[in-house]
Amino acid sequence: MNINDYKVLFEEHLEKKIIAEEPKNLYEPIIYILNLGGKRLRSILTLMCCDLFGGNHLESLDAALAIEMFHNFSLVHDDIMDKAPLRRGQKTVHEKWDLNTGILSGDAMLVLSNQLLESYEGEKYKKLNSLFNKTALQVCEGQQYDMDFEREISISVEDYIKMISLKTGVLIATALKFGAIIAMSENNDMENIYQYGLNLGIAFQLQDDYLDIFGEDDFGKQKAGDIIENKKTFLYLKTLEMAEDNDKKKILKLYGKEQFSEEKIESVVELFKKYKIPNLTELEIQKYTLKAHQNIRNLSIDQNKKNVFINFADQLMDRKV
Amino acid sequence: MNINDYKVLFEEHLEKKIIAEEPKNLYEPIIYILNLGGKRLRSILTLMCCDLFGGNHLESLDAALAIEMFHNFSLVHDDIMDKAPLRRGQKTVHEKWDLNTGILSGDAMLVLSNQLLESYEGEKYKKLNSLFNKTALQVCEGQQYDMDFEREISISVEDYIKMISLKTGVLIATALKFGAIIAMSENNDMENIYQYGLNLGIAFQLQDDYLDIFGEDDFGKQKAGDIIENKKTFLYLKTLEMAEDNDKKKILKLYGKEQFSEEKIESVVELFKKYKIPNLTELEIQKYTLKAHQNIRNLSIDQNKKNVFINFADQLMDRKV
Repeated sequence: MNINDYKVLFEEHLEKKIIAEEPKNLYEPIIYILNLGGKRLRSILTLMCCDLFGGNHLESLDAALAIEMFHNFSLVHDDIMDKAPLRRGQKTVHEKWDLNTGILSGDAMLVLSNQLLESYEGEKYKKLNSLFNKTALQVCEGQQYDMDFEREISISVEDYIKMISLKTGVLIATALKFGAIIAMSENNDMENIYQYGLNLGIAFQLQDDYLDIFGEDDFGKQKAGDIIENKKTFLYLKTLEMAEDNDKKKILKLYGKEQFSEEKIESVVELFKKYKIPNLTELEIQKYTLKAHQNIRNLSIDQNKKNVFINFADQLMDRKV
Repeated sequence: MNINDYKVLFEEHLEKKIIAEEPKNLYEPIIYILNLGGKRLRSILTLMCCDLFGGNHLESLDAALAIEMFHNFSLVHDDIMDKAPLRRGQKTVHEKWDLNTGILSGDAMLVLSNQLLESYEGEKYKKLNSLFNKTALQVCEGQQYDMDFEREISISVEDYIKMISLKTGVLIATALKFGAIIAMSENNDMENIYQYGLNLGIAFQLQDDYLDIFGEDDFGKQKAGDIIENKKTFLYLKTLEMAEDNDKKKILKLYGKEQFSEEKIESVVELFKKYKIPNLTELEIQKYTLKAHQNIRNLSIDQNKKNVFINFADQLMDRKV
């Protein structure tokens, strides 16, 4: 099966399993956000990983749905916290309905994601649940660090990597390990596939940071939303780490500006280039991608199966937008 | 052991188990809300029930803490949705910190409550978790109905009883059943103790409605906060059900007023009395208390143990504030 086969299967399962119940003001927003689309990256990883470790991907459909449900819970609550009006080009839940609906429907999604794991029994059930709870708490911690960092001045690149590994990495790692748990793979393999996911997640987020400035949008234009919003990304923090004092002052001052200006973007990008930040970011992405490759080499499965994971990572890192 | 012994034990366990971790902006509000006190009614029921069904209450401490954690999660998020500035005489989390802290710390508490159940193994673990997830979802549904009812005109007394059984009843029922599950009691007993909790929860909430108007506050004065806030309580809905058309119009009009006035309170109370609502409410409370008694009589445990549950219900219903 290829990626798209898994996606189609997953979408069918979601449609069958998540149906509107009463009270409708609680369940309609859940169906709305789940149907805004998205790549279903995490869920596909669960299904694929289950297969590659010798399990049956059909058995992992509910676990994949639990991951997707949790991911969407975190989007609904994060969008409130970030005051985001749009998600995937459509209104966010708290915008389309209201704050209370966003909070409560999000809560229900967190519960539903737990409930979906009830399809599993015995030790498998316990393993999935424990990992899920640990991960859910880490994602909350990651979101808290992210909000804390907005107000703090002295954040290190190391702090940032820790934050994104909590906010993004652990859920991708868990999606993969879910597949491995259901396929009842060996402990060593489970640990390696988890680390692969973590490294992949970090590489993925760093690439997001990179592409926001040096990638192209659908119209071939630079987006630079992170600069406009003064986001403390890897590029910004690395510049602060590398820059001479006067340039450090310069970028700090530029990031103090609230208003949009082309000049601000140009000046920041110029500073990034001066300190070879594009290059350093690419090296950092490569570092985590290579770590992910190493995790795969450590697995006890066949080489052709290892290649699927390796290719997946390379394809993910090959995107231009 | 008496109620207070259980409470002391529980408080010790909470203090030992819930410690401040990083990031502090996530965990401090959790410790704050858990330490605002409260009767710990639900947790005491878990411990007591475990003992009375022949288990060891020490084994049920983590389950009791999970219930308390979940209860406090729901308080934190409900307080945001209700825009409540105070909880137990102290600032609510979103007032003391901010909206985002309230949302995220609440989320973490929901996860932590799930995580506390990991102390149990095998079938016990699965039973506790399944019941917990079902209950958590019902509490969300209850909160949604509560918010929906604020905007709707034609709510029946039946709708209201359903709402309070979801919002208040099921968690008390679950607290008790948790104790029974850990003590590995018979299925029939588990079902009966759950129903006892449900009936007790409904009686408890109806009594809250009653005492708000016909009880006394600490200074011997009528509170009537529910009338001031136009809350659609059992008393209000029962009046609408009983009243002649002109009185129905009268109370609907009175409940349209936003401003506080002694006259409004007096007029509403007069209407309540005209239709013998205090009496009808007491009868309804009695109905659910008697149902709870019947649930206890159906249990397969010793009479002296049954008496503890009966007395507990009677004491709870005997309160004047």
